[in-house]
Amino acid sequence: MQNDVVSELAQRVGPDVVVEPDAQNVLRHSQDFGVPPDAKANILALTYPRNTQQVTTILKFCNERRISVQPQGGMTGMAGGGVPVGPCVVISLERMRAIKELDVAAGTITVEAGVVMETVQKAADAADLFFPLDLGGRGSCQIGGNVSTNAGGNRVLRFGMARDLVLGIEAVLADGTVIDSLRKVMKNNTGYDLRQLFIGAEGTLGIITAVVLRLFPKPRSVCIGLLALQDYAGVLELLQRARLGFGAQLTAFEVMWPDFYELGTVGLGRKPPLPLGAGVYVLLETMGQDAEVDAQRYETVIGEALNAGVVKDAVVAKSSREATELWTVRDSPGEWQRTPHWPQLGFDVSVPTGEIHALMSEIDAELTSRWPELKTVYFGHVADGNLHASVRMNGHSVPELAIEDAVYSIVSRRKGSISAEHGIGSLKRKFLHYSRSPEELALMRAIKQVMDPNGILNPGKVL
Amino acid sequence: MQNDVVSELAQRVGPDVVVEPDAQNVLRHSQDFGVPPDAKANILALTYPRNTQQVTTILKFCNERRISVQPQGGMTGMAGGGVPVGPCVVISLERMRAIKELDVAAGTITVEAGVVMETVQKAADAADLFFPLDLGGRGSCQIGGNVSTNAGGNRVLRFGMARDLVLGIEAVLADGTVIDSLRKVMKNNTGYDLRQLFIGAEGTLGIITAVVLRLFPKPRSVCIGLLALQDYAGVLELLQRARLGFGAQLTAFEVMWPDFYELGTVGLGRKPPLPLGAGVYVLLETMGQDAEVDAQRYETVIGEALNAGVVKDAVVAKSSREATELWTVRDSPGEWQRTPHWPQLGFDVSVPTGEIHALMSEIDAELTSRWPELKTVYFGHVADGNLHASVRMNGHSVPELAIEDAVYSIVSRRKGSISAEHGIGSLKRKFLHYSRSPEELALMRAIKQVMDPNGILNPGKVL
Repeated sequence: MQNDVVSELAQRVGPDVVVEPDAQNVLRHSQDFGVPPDAKANILALTYPRNTQQVTTILKFCNERRISVQPQGGMTGMAGGGVPVGPCVVISLERMRAIKELDVAAGTITVEAGVVMETVQKAADAADLFFPLDLGGRGSCQIGGNVSTNAGGNRVLRFGMARDLVLGIEAVLADGTVIDSLRKVMKNNTGYDLRQLFIGAEGTLGIITAVVLRLFPKPRSVCIGLLALQDYAGVLELLQRARLGFGAQLTAFEVMWPDFYELGTVGLGRKPPLPLGAGVYVLLETMGQDAEVDAQRYETVIGEALNAGVVKDAVVAKSSREATELWTVRDSPGEWQRTPHWPQLGFDVSVPTGEIHALMSEIDAELTSRWPELKTVYFGHVADGNLHASVRMNGHSVPELAIEDAVYSIVSRRKGSISAEHGIGSLKRKFLHYSRSPEELALMRAIKQVMDPNGILNPGKVL
Repeated sequence: MQNDVVSELAQRVGPDVVVEPDAQNVLRHSQDFGVPPDAKANILALTYPRNTQQVTTILKFCNERRISVQPQGGMTGMAGGGVPVGPCVVISLERMRAIKELDVAAGTITVEAGVVMETVQKAADAADLFFPLDLGGRGSCQIGGNVSTNAGGNRVLRFGMARDLVLGIEAVLADGTVIDSLRKVMKNNTGYDLRQLFIGAEGTLGIITAVVLRLFPKPRSVCIGLLALQDYAGVLELLQRARLGFGAQLTAFEVMWPDFYELGTVGLGRKPPLPLGAGVYVLLETMGQDAEVDAQRYETVIGEALNAGVVKDAVVAKSSREATELWTVRDSPGEWQRTPHWPQLGFDVSVPTGEIHALMSEIDAELTSRWPELKTVYFGHVADGNLHASVRMNGHSVPELAIEDAVYSIVSRRKGSISAEHGIGSLKRKFLHYSRSPEELALMRAIKQVMDPNGILNPGKVL
């Protein structure tokens, strides 16, 4: 079977596009950032199409033969969306990496799915423009994957998620049909928004091959400070002040609770920018068009919050090096491997912003009452209602599934989301019903059935 | 048949919800702002549900009997989306007008579909927040209709269309199933984005009964000026300066060509704020959080554009009365009935911003070469790539259909949209293929078929 698939595919799209699986290349295509290889995975052929027509040819073949297809981007996902879970043909978009056009007047960039996020950011920057989507994997994640998983990141507050940055899309359906909605227009009220069906569907409804992305004016100023507060009521008070004081210039409002702050500073052998011991820490960033005026405004708004007693202590970055140092604390989860907190079990949930503290307390009470040995740290994009929790899985034998079930039950009762930004993939599939009603799930299945009747696209994911 | 439908529905949802059609109420439910009654319309019963359960009951009944359903909001649409075109039961959402919750911390307002846009704006304002969606019909259009048609308006540039302002949605499917995605969270990456299917579908996939909308910090400053420029190259240059100078504070960039400007000032017996005779006029608005700083910034950016010769003349509003006067010029189409320009044939198309002038020239050349008697005025939300054209239909007998076909053919060749913000409804249905490929149309039809297999929802619209 295996050799047949490779040779038949090679006949159709050319031998340079199809690679026979071997131990080495299979490993690379079997795991992503958050999920190890699946024992039932069986890659029949690896394909690296160079254009949309080749994607069509591969999909047509697989659809006719009822062979599952595993779409893959940069393999930096957190939920296993790109990880094979059965026999399949892999379609890697990595060779489709052309920047087709950057249109300054329209404020758009048109790119193939395999273009790396950082490449888009740099292309925008070179044109004095700004592509705001940003996350830790920027150097290897691909735009097709970012859009397929509706990636979030640190600037959602101001610029939205990937979903909000896509003006046009080109996607190939399971039967090879190309849906060409690659339009460079902001406004297009002509029937159903097919774009949004593909965005966040994690490749289960079609394979995204190209997108038109929105670009913004390049910010001329960035102001960043770390603030210490007493409690979550103070956080909400500061958020209101920041919203009214900075308006659309508020780009990040990241909250860190004490255990997270300690782990991300002294836990990694670094001097904390502000002393330990505060009730909660906020990293607050603004972007604007006038360095002098914006810096003054930042000082004013934070100064007022200090005077009002809302903020207890503050450090404002005076250089881009200091700004990076402050962000390093927030980005410390990438270094946890070298702390006793590792291995950990991560959560990425959302509830309305006002409920974040109540959610956290409820989770904490539930976990510690049932398993006193558990240690959890909390942080998050609080202005987006997005809380991250990380449970230390070192030094105890509480099963992951039991912890997940406990946390997601609480989120579900608050009508929150069990996956704010990481997606469902294979990892959270069994918990999907905690965030989606039976009616929503039935409608999703009906749409999946009509768009991919043979179920070849990324099986075992999402639904 | 008619009496049967009224009495059977009354039995199921209560007699207070169902009204027998008569000459007067039928007239009110048979036309919207842009489209007169259809000769084939035949309203079998008028229903005014008070809650979602009643919408479900009505839809179940109609679906079982294969009776078409006409959803209706404020009847201010421009494309006939709410106008009956055959035998049908009308479901008017006007009694579902509760504001269910305003959540300051989350920055959300949860409202039933029948709430009037202006009511949402005022509720936000009272809480020191801002609901940015705004258009001429604000006093009578309903949020359900705004979301169903994905309304645009004057502030899309900064805040997006209705689609971008909806966090959660509740909709009832053709068979009465309630899809409850009424979540107050910014981020929810749990499977397909069902919200976006209903938004812009003009009631053909389900009836929207409630929404969670995003609110923003209330702006503390508004700066508005009218600028005279030489040509469209100058407009693009000014747009780049405005984007870089104002960043996220740029909220409107409205372009008016000379014939439009003349019609909207002296044509209505008003003194033009700037003299006639410039090549093109731009209304430029910013919103920010600091009246003094923002006004100074406005003067600086516009002053630099004047010094550089990009802007030839400028008037900046010094009071809210003067600001209203400047907007009155842009909003003058609402008064055209009392000018010789009336009746007119309106277009609402989009192409990438850089191509707007080329599109306009192409349309103008085509129309005047074929019909020298035609007179067309142009204006638009140019930063969104959205051009409005208005062809005077007074004093000649050129058929509308021929003009529409000529304009949409040109838009189609540029891969633009034949309806940037007004929707398709019944009015543009025959032109849909100019903006959507056969593959896109087939996919839309497949989705319609699976969600409304009996085709009862708003038949004769969109597809």
